Amino acid sequence: MLSSADANHPALVRIPTWVHEKLSPKAVDYIKRVHYWVETECIPAEPIVKAQLAKSGRWKTPAIIHELRAKAKKEGLFNLFLPKHFGDLSPGLTNLEYSCCAEIMGRCYWAAQTMNCHAPETGNIELLAKYCNEEQKKKWLLPLLNGDFSSAYSMTEPDRASSDATQIACRITRDPNDPETLVINGRKLYGNAMWNDDLQVYILMACSDPDNPDAWKRHSTVIVPKDTPGFKMVRNLSIMGYDHAPEGHGEYLYENARIPASNIILGEGRAFEIAQGRLGPGRIHHCMRLIGQTERAYELALIRATDPKKKPRGRLIGDFDSNIERIASMRLQLDSLRLVVLNAAHTMDVHGNKAGRYAIAQSKILVPATAAKIIDECMQMYGGQGMTQHTPLPEMWTYARFVRIADGPDAAHRHQVGRDQLKTVGPIRDRHDGYQKRYKELCEKWDVDHETIVGGAL
Amino acid sequence: MLSSADANHPALVRIPTWVHEKLSPKAVDYIKRVHYWVETECIPAEPIVKAQLAKSGRWKTPAIIHELRAKAKKEGLFNLFLPKHFGDLSPGLTNLEYSCCAEIMGRCYWAAQTMNCHAPETGNIELLAKYCNEEQKKKWLLPLLNGDFSSAYSMTEPDRASSDATQIACRITRDPNDPETLVINGRKLYGNAMWNDDLQVYILMACSDPDNPDAWKRHSTVIVPKDTPGFKMVRNLSIMGYDHAPEGHGEYLYENARIPASNIILGEGRAFEIAQGRLGPGRIHHCMRLIGQTERAYELALIRATDPKKKPRGRLIGDFDSNIERIASMRLQLDSLRLVVLNAAHTMDVHGNKAGRYAIAQSKILVPATAAKIIDECMQMYGGQGMTQHTPLPEMWTYARFVRIADGPDAAHRHQVGRDQLKTVGPIRDRHDGYQKRYKELCEKWDVDHETIVGGAL
Amino acid sequence: MLSSADANHPALVRIPTWVHEKLSPKAVDYIKRVHYWVETECIPAEPIVKAQLAKSGRWKTPAIIHELRAKAKKEGLFNLFLPKHFGDLSPGLTNLEYSCCAEIMGRCYWAAQTMNCHAPETGNIELLAKYCNEEQKKKWLLPLLNGDFSSAYSMTEPDRASSDATQIACRITRDPNDPETLVINGRKLYGNAMWNDDLQVYILMACSDPDNPDAWKRHSTVIVPKDTPGFKMVRNLSIMGYDHAPEGHGEYLYENARIPASNIILGEGRAFEIAQGRLGPGRIHHCMRLIGQTERAYELALIRATDPKKKPRGRLIGDFDSNIERIASMRLQLDSLRLVVLNAAHTMDVHGNKAGRYAIAQSKILVPATAAKIIDECMQMYGGQGMTQHTPLPEMWTYARFVRIADGPDAAHRHQVGRDQLKTVGPIRDRHDGYQKRYKELCEKWDVDHETIVGGAL
Amino acid sequence: MLSSADANHPALVRIPTWVHEKLSPKAVDYIKRVHYWVETECIPAEPIVKAQLAKSGRWKTPAIIHELRAKAKKEGLFNLFLPKHFGDLSPGLTNLEYSCCAEIMGRCYWAAQTMNCHAPETGNIELLAKYCNEEQKKKWLLPLLNGDFSSAYSMTEPDRASSDATQIACRITRDPNDPETLVINGRKLYGNAMWNDDLQVYILMACSDPDNPDAWKRHSTVIVPKDTPGFKMVRNLSIMGYDHAPEGHGEYLYENARIPASNIILGEGRAFEIAQGRLGPGRIHHCMRLIGQTERAYELALIRATDPKKKPRGRLIGDFDSNIERIASMRLQLDSLRLVVLNAAHTMDVHGNKAGRYAIAQSKILVPATAAKIIDECMQMYGGQGMTQHTPLPEMWTYARFVRIADGPDAAHRHQVGRDQLKTVGPIRDRHDGYQKRYKELCEKWDVDHETIVGGAL
Repeated sequence: MLSSADANHPALVRIPTWVHEKLSPKAVDYIKRVHYWVETECIPAEPIVKAQLAKSGRWKTPAIIHELRAKAKKEGLFNLFLPKHFGDLSPGLTNLEYSCCAEIMGRCYWAAQTMNCHAPETGNIELLAKYCNEEQKKKWLLPLLNGDFSSAYSMTEPDRASSDATQIACRITRDPNDPETLVINGRKLYGNAMWNDDLQVYILMACSDPDNPDAWKRHSTVIVPKDTPGFKMVRNLSIMGYDHAPEGHGEYLYENARIPASNIILGEGRAFEIAQGRLGPGRIHHCMRLIGQTERAYELALIRATDPKKKPRGRLIGDFDSNIERIASMRLQLDSLRLVVLNAAHTMDVHGNKAGRYAIAQSKILVPATAAKIIDECMQMYGGQGMTQHTPLPEMWTYARFVRIADGPDAAHRHQVGRDQLKTVGPIRDRHDGYQKRYKELCEKWDVDHETIVGGAL
Repeated sequence: MLSSADANHPALVRIPTWVHEKLSPKAVDYIKRVHYWVETECIPAEPIVKAQLAKSGRWKTPAIIHELRAKAKKEGLFNLFLPKHFGDLSPGLTNLEYSCCAEIMGRCYWAAQTMNCHAPETGNIELLAKYCNEEQKKKWLLPLLNGDFSSAYSMTEPDRASSDATQIACRITRDPNDPETLVINGRKLYGNAMWNDDLQVYILMACSDPDNPDAWKRHSTVIVPKDTPGFKMVRNLSIMGYDHAPEGHGEYLYENARIPASNIILGEGRAFEIAQGRLGPGRIHHCMRLIGQTERAYELALIRATDPKKKPRGRLIGDFDSNIERIASMRLQLDSLRLVVLNAAHTMDVHGNKAGRYAIAQSKILVPATAAKIIDECMQMYGGQGMTQHTPLPEMWTYARFVRIADGPDAAHRHQVGRDQLKTVGPIRDRHDGYQKRYKELCEKWDVDHETIVGGAL
Repeated sequence: MLSSADANHPALVRIPTWVHEKLSPKAVDYIKRVHYWVETECIPAEPIVKAQLAKSGRWKTPAIIHELRAKAKKEGLFNLFLPKHFGDLSPGLTNLEYSCCAEIMGRCYWAAQTMNCHAPETGNIELLAKYCNEEQKKKWLLPLLNGDFSSAYSMTEPDRASSDATQIACRITRDPNDPETLVINGRKLYGNAMWNDDLQVYILMACSDPDNPDAWKRHSTVIVPKDTPGFKMVRNLSIMGYDHAPEGHGEYLYENARIPASNIILGEGRAFEIAQGRLGPGRIHHCMRLIGQTERAYELALIRATDPKKKPRGRLIGDFDSNIERIASMRLQLDSLRLVVLNAAHTMDVHGNKAGRYAIAQSKILVPATAAKIIDECMQMYGGQGMTQHTPLPEMWTYARFVRIADGPDAAHRHQVGRDQLKTVGPIRDRHDGYQKRYKELCEKWDVDHETIVGGAL
Repeated sequence: MLSSADANHPALVRIPTWVHEKLSPKAVDYIKRVHYWVETECIPAEPIVKAQLAKSGRWKTPAIIHELRAKAKKEGLFNLFLPKHFGDLSPGLTNLEYSCCAEIMGRCYWAAQTMNCHAPETGNIELLAKYCNEEQKKKWLLPLLNGDFSSAYSMTEPDRASSDATQIACRITRDPNDPETLVINGRKLYGNAMWNDDLQVYILMACSDPDNPDAWKRHSTVIVPKDTPGFKMVRNLSIMGYDHAPEGHGEYLYENARIPASNIILGEGRAFEIAQGRLGPGRIHHCMRLIGQTERAYELALIRATDPKKKPRGRLIGDFDSNIERIASMRLQLDSLRLVVLNAAHTMDVHGNKAGRYAIAQSKILVPATAAKIIDECMQMYGGQGMTQHTPLPEMWTYARFVRIADGPDAAHRHQVGRDQLKTVGPIRDRHDGYQKRYKELCEKWDVDHETIVGGAL
């Protein structure tokens, strides 16, 4: 159990009691250190990052980020997300414990990056660790863990329903003259921008065996080095107008791009095996970071509501009942979301990622949509300024909106949950049939004629 | 930790893992027994209760309820809500454990009553236990614990803002000729109906000292026996058209009603002390029962969605994507609500009712409004029939709507939460001021001119 | 154009200017008379109706209603809904003009009935007028027009998807021994209650030719007199607990009920032809009445908001900004709904019922759902009392909720609109393809390379 | 009345029948020409504009815009918004007729600009025409009408509640040594960017008489030429990350900026007189353009829903019921919004801007919020691509969100409406008191004891 001081520490005060009880002293220490790091080194540096980006033409990682990454590594705040099975590399945090860290990281858009805990790196590292052979690990996993270069994940295509990965059409063939060389042709959307020097490799999902009768065995996952000839970035894709530099989101063209067959991960046709294992904890991290970001938006709303310089009709914004109620609604919803995600994290800790599937979907569907609404409300409290760069709120809203669509539209997730639910109807129907049977027994006992009863059904 | 069989028991399967971990074997046993009781003895008997009510003219407790109460008592399922400080009378369940029972009780509107765990009895019992002297306890508390008669709580008045209890105007004066006799005059709304034979006493909050400079010391709480001359029930107040017989909600008139001064609880002018202690856990119980009820509505929606007799345009209702998404949304929201209430229950267990105030408000605001929406959606899936007595859904919706207003409109609760939140702004503003200070240090270090920066603010 | 006095008359002040311009002097006169009638004769009599119902055992039309109907007839306020083609019987109002009357009628639940303008009478009268032969008209239409007895419409069945009328299974066969006699077997839901003396005939839609290859020709519409042997009412169906007496909603059983074949309307197998023509204007009337009712709920909210007896925390309810905003939202939405329905009415006037199909659906989908939300908000402003019989709000909400499902769930209507919309995509796509073509011309003219453009698509 | 061909023309088909009836032949001709213009010259040129902006460094009006403006002028499509009182300069369209043009203009973000019908020009032109003396008109109004240069409006300040213009603090003083020279000091937000060559003058609202006891007479409106020394633009304010180049939204500093006193409009201290007259029709135009833009977003959704290349789980997006319902909802809401705005336009035509105040507020509150939701839904249908520059949807959403806040937050407008409504309660309360009185008469007539009635109140 936490000391009262720890329980009321700003890094822990919003964490529910049942989670407090499950945090190891080590985790509490990490949470407080992450909090100090984000509050002191990251948030105040946000405009510096922007200034350095503007100065360098946007596609170079700002010097301050490099410095912070080096410092975080030295202070033992690197790779906190690594699960226990990474052994000495891992800090040994549970999903629940790491989730508390992730929320704090989310308060600054790029704080996770200073700790090497950002997407898509975390997912890529887990993927490479799980499915690469030793040689591949040496080449790609270790540098990522070490923070030497960064990686991208490339899956979505234009002109395909992105919620159905079996339709992926980007084509991998073997060079007939050199079967140890793979030739890639196709167009891909998203995946961080090639224009950034730090980025070195792409993890590509593409179709290697289109005629395989099993649609789940037609695709392979391969590593494509950035400098592969025939591989080029057409343009950066903005998100609601933001270029998200220096990471960005590229649109890519593969025109007879050639890579060695040894770059195949796990084996030909095994892309779906790999994809399955990738997303669970990552989605939770996304959601917790989003909650952290929304907490910061909420704090800005509180500050505005009590700003003595802003007094429409002579009253503080926070003196208006309508705003008091809005603040309460935001607070209540935000705390509910945290309960949902932390429950998902704990379920995964106890029962594994697969058992946590429903709870993950619950987070994924509820958090981004609600977070976007809350941030929108905070913007509104700032009047016109809320939409300008005078506040970080527009970027926050955009991030929340983006997460809502990032791993598939929420409608697709809802669909999956709904279909799973409908499959559970069997025993429920049996129980309800049982009510009817028992009811008829009771009718006899109590001499009730159930044909003419006026009152009501079960 | 629960066995896998217990974890998947219908009574426990929706309870989150972190709660599973906290349930004592005794609690698990109670939960399963309550489940069996409700599923076997209560739900199937619902139409019997209606038939007996219709036959008896509505204001007599149905014979089957009497029988079930006797049986529940014999089986040790009576007074489960009693907190540990009731000693041997209490089953010793934590708030968290009892909440799991309450959810199940909520599946049938009157199931809690068969276990003597219904409102307003639970609140009244706690009140009498906490504030009565020994003689009073013997007279009123013991029979209630024993289930010998029932009680009502009387507070709200017409023509007063019910969210502001200091305005209560019903007047208690001492008879100048007989100072040990109190004379009561006024009109009250709500409180169970006098027309039911089982009801014997009213716990009344009224104004005894209107001129006291301290507005919180003007009121007293007294016991008024039902047969007090001058005390009469004007009419039963229907709720959305339901008479809620045989308990009902009376409108009352006190015309020189006389009671002995020994019926004052705790002491003159101490009504607010009493009122404060009353509502916390009760609100949580209400919310959990509402969740249980909404689960049953949800089950009915699943059954309808898969009913082979209902196939608009040749497809099952549950084959339509729009309905699949609706089912998912209901499921996700309902599970989120449960997390909120269970968190409130656990917070009260660990930190006490007072510390749980925010979490209780969170439950009170979120649960009834959302439950009503879910049940409304379930009705809609049943088409026109969903609004008739062919399903229990209309009564369920009405109950949810009623709970939303029962302890004060949710706007009043939101207001309280919002005002409390605004008071927390001090240290948040300090932290944000700290960002600015640190930012200026960083500007110097990195040679950034913060006056001309285009990028964005903190 | 209206005089300023007329434009500001309470009966007309909320009607938009463009409608004012289209009202004939005769219509203005009717509207004002209907307003006087409803305000003076109906609304103040609401509790009298309830008292008479209670006294008579609920299933007898109250004496005051009979009196008011006689008086309305005498004053020329009977059958105002009749379209012009009814000749002398019709007051000659357009749909738009009658809609203004209907809104006012909606302020009192049963006011339309005093003017013989209530459902299902209006639809039944139009149906009989359009499809009956002269003999049938004499027997059933004239008495309805005259207000001598009332009729019911019987279509929905349990265990069938009510949104798909081709599934109707209630069976009409010819008696093999007496081909001029029809034998009916089946179960029906809804249709006013047989228990009311004033009701005499049922218009029944049932299956007469189940094997017809054309699913739209399998059903016939027949008249079933109430006293037909073998035809009985099983129970009254309550709506959200309300019995809606003395009209009610019956559940019916046909067990070898026999009627003469001359009771077939239009001809065997022609039920769908009849059904098609029935609903258009009726749905608009329903919607306008609902708007009128919601206006009255809104007035009650204004009254509560300014009630000097209700001052939580010392302020009027209407002094709270949150309530000020709620009142504005209600006002704005309600006025938008009126625009929608009046537009539908006018579209039908100019282009006919069929062309108005979309506008009718727009009304049907938007009005009841929004009206129910507004009334719910008004209830909330009344606190607990808002749900009791101390206000008419619970019955108003129930009516709005009922209209939402009455002619099929709104999802079914939305579905139809959405499918129609998707069919319109052809020319839209052509236009958008045209943009691309023209864009490429412009690229050449302005020397832009559209392959590498970063900016954005059409 | 329109010919059937005109009524079904894409420019007119969604306009309601009652508006069709009010369009003059000239207006119909304008509407069709504007439609042709926007469809042929504007929408296909959108990426050209972006390319030219990128090439020129963003702050130069693209050559194609200049060309289009010249061409539109030649074709008589310039200044269509000018009301009739502008005489020969005006095309003579009513608000209602011009609204139909404005909707079409809104389909392309900058189409209105090609026709000199864009904000803030339209408002500024009306202001100058209404309040300038002849000399001022020659200097500033004529060039604006002629399209020779552009203007900005400057009102909002940081650190003031922008919804309360009496707090405006930017200071105008007379130079003590040269009373015919005004000296301006202060900071302003918004107003188009000085960086654009075409912009020449700012219409500034500032405080000239802070001690005037009448708070509405403390401010003056003056013209500030762009090249005034001491007047500088600090930065461009992005809106949700968009720079909105080449017009932009500047942040400005006035440091002893000096202008001649002859630049005062109307007279010292008369800024509020001027401000009052400015916004009415402009808000309607904004709303209609927003509806046009949302129509285009909707068309994109239809196209996506039927795109044969996008088939998740083998079905078109538009084959999913959930999407069919979403499309219907969008359609229904959008058409309702149009009815609201057109009604406001017509009300202004008939009764003047002042009488239209409520209808304008109705548009202002309902349109932007709903439009933003609809566009958001359209984005969601495009999956991840919907947020990138592959569609114009992100800019559309941002515009809608911006309009929601542009003339004050919608809460402020709702507040005004709500307060106005509460003032109307007097006669309503009288009517309701009348019900009670009449009710008591009826109680006597029908022998009902209204004290003991169970049924229900008025």
